[in-house]
Amino acid sequence: MKSVGVVTPQRVSFDAPIALSGGATLPAFDLVYETYGELNAEGSNAVLVCHALSGSHHVAGVYADQPNNVGWWDNLVGPGKPLDTNRFFVVGVNNLGGCYGSTGPMSANPATGKPYGADFPVVTVEDWVAVQARLADFLGIDCWAAVLGGSVGGMQALEWTLQFPERVRHALVIASTPKLTAQNIAFNEVARQAILTDPDFHGGRFYEHGVVPARGLRLARMLGHITYLSDSQMAEKFGRELKNGKLSYGYGTDFQIESYLRYQGDKFTTYFDANTYLITTKALDYFDPARDYGGDLQAALARAKASFFVASFSTDWRFSPERSREIVYALMHNGRDVSYAEIECSAGHDSFLLDDAHYHAVVGAYFDRIET
Amino acid sequence: MKSVGVVTPQRVSFDAPIALSGGATLPAFDLVYETYGELNAEGSNAVLVCHALSGSHHVAGVYADQPNNVGWWDNLVGPGKPLDTNRFFVVGVNNLGGCYGSTGPMSANPATGKPYGADFPVVTVEDWVAVQARLADFLGIDCWAAVLGGSVGGMQALEWTLQFPERVRHALVIASTPKLTAQNIAFNEVARQAILTDPDFHGGRFYEHGVVPARGLRLARMLGHITYLSDSQMAEKFGRELKNGKLSYGYGTDFQIESYLRYQGDKFTTYFDANTYLITTKALDYFDPARDYGGDLQAALARAKASFFVASFSTDWRFSPERSREIVYALMHNGRDVSYAEIECSAGHDSFLLDDAHYHAVVGAYFDRIET
Repeated sequence: MKSVGVVTPQRVSFDAPIALSGGATLPAFDLVYETYGELNAEGSNAVLVCHALSGSHHVAGVYADQPNNVGWWDNLVGPGKPLDTNRFFVVGVNNLGGCYGSTGPMSANPATGKPYGADFPVVTVEDWVAVQARLADFLGIDCWAAVLGGSVGGMQALEWTLQFPERVRHALVIASTPKLTAQNIAFNEVARQAILTDPDFHGGRFYEHGVVPARGLRLARMLGHITYLSDSQMAEKFGRELKNGKLSYGYGTDFQIESYLRYQGDKFTTYFDANTYLITTKALDYFDPARDYGGDLQAALARAKASFFVASFSTDWRFSPERSREIVYALMHNGRDVSYAEIECSAGHDSFLLDDAHYHAVVGAYFDRIET
Repeated sequence: MKSVGVVTPQRVSFDAPIALSGGATLPAFDLVYETYGELNAEGSNAVLVCHALSGSHHVAGVYADQPNNVGWWDNLVGPGKPLDTNRFFVVGVNNLGGCYGSTGPMSANPATGKPYGADFPVVTVEDWVAVQARLADFLGIDCWAAVLGGSVGGMQALEWTLQFPERVRHALVIASTPKLTAQNIAFNEVARQAILTDPDFHGGRFYEHGVVPARGLRLARMLGHITYLSDSQMAEKFGRELKNGKLSYGYGTDFQIESYLRYQGDKFTTYFDANTYLITTKALDYFDPARDYGGDLQAALARAKASFFVASFSTDWRFSPERSREIVYALMHNGRDVSYAEIECSAGHDSFLLDDAHYHAVVGAYFDRIET
């Protein structure tokens, strides 16, 4: 199937200060974003794609000088694809606090001239959405045809319908949850502690020391991968297969799964920022729209006006189908228009990134009915 | 209910060398053990209790100078308890490679006079059982009335029936599995990498540096606790409760679950040895009696002659009931006498350590029918 082809990231600077949920104010910030397709004259065909933990603004296509750097959701977004760029104007943006070009911990703090590091404030899903709204203003988009995301990207799609009910017609909330469980938070906490206690973290000021907390970031990513895959898929893909045909009786590599996790962990440390990892896990932990409603999700979602597409995956044990159903029930009890797909897929949480035929068919069918 | 009261650990030295599964030979070794109750004249009432990852020989009772140091299975073992020390002579032993007094990485290597550290060989469940048989010889026990254990302790009970089919009449295999899954191995691998990459690990020779790899051991324990508890119990016990009533927007403690995990992790580093942790996770990973039978568990268990009690817990996601059923089916197809209890308990893997009335009733009923 065709790709959007060569794309070029854009940058926009915002000079109006932004007050964040935690009390801090950023005097100014940059956002890096990409667009695919054309905004129509009415401005009615714009779709925002929100990224998850390690994602970015690079949703589809490739860069002219990096032909192998394919956007993370290229299988879903493009001409003739489920999110069809022949019909829709699609926007991807690197979130505030990110490490792919938008203002974040690696950026220079105007107050000191040095990278923010640990001084970059914790940001929330609410903050991300407020910042995305600035981008929408800049692009001349009064109302998104749809906001779409998987995992913490789905939290952003949901948050759009609450913070800006008049500015989003459809929200696609995929492999997500209305809030993290204690177990979800626990996994995030172990990952954070791995980074925070790495001697190379230097209280978040590792840039100045010319090092990265690679040990901690590696462990965080290894642990993350366990929660992204299903038990059954891991069994199918790796089982108890040995790397070298026999047991080593040592601490080298015995099993294929060990080799896989180490490889993924090592690779991650070469391109991802540890402070961004910390910030993003906190945004996940904090997200809980029902918090101000005594835990009543139905009451929390009452102000949403969008139509919803919610999808979950049968083997996702990070954000199980049960968590998506909580969102669906709360929306239905508010009389909202909700489509829900519970998709049989063996790949666990990461299923939302895969080119599964049934999954893509239902997403495509949903987009087909969105008027532009 | 009554306890066995004040107990005193014993030590025995074995001078005959022992060849280990990995090819190494230990010239001599010590075992530390405890006994409760009296061995009868026929030697027919002896029960071996095998410990799990962080357990020890101190199964029941207290020490005269440590009245709060209660044995880890004191709720199960004692006069009038499910494993009744009025009827049975119960033995607890610290496994080879342990850190509670039996020869292990902290012991002096006779070849160098320094602690073994990383030179202590990887040992297996098979090795532990071979060593336990030496202790049985020393104690004059030709045949155990029963061998009992939970988790990796259950693996040892199962292994007894395979390595010494004539020396065990009953095996109680609780919250265990015939082999680890890829996901189980993955969790162990992240824990190992946390320890191995801690700069204070010093290739396992940290004793000589006067430090312990506390960061790594802490992370390993935090991660372990996530897998020992069930999602539902974590939700019930901690939920999203905040430690200080409000979000910190930082990396201190926001949620109760964070506080709990940090506390458990920190505490563990004060008493457990990192090399023992590594060795024990490898013993878990390697255990797979069906490996030499082309994965055919029924064939692997054909030589067992014991009667079996197998128990699992409904919310145990580390070693789920399904894994226990694999053992049960393989034994039944071999015509063995098997009792199986699948116990409703919210506490996940750690249920096997708890004083659950139904659980203790069935264990007690099983022991009641064992002739002495």
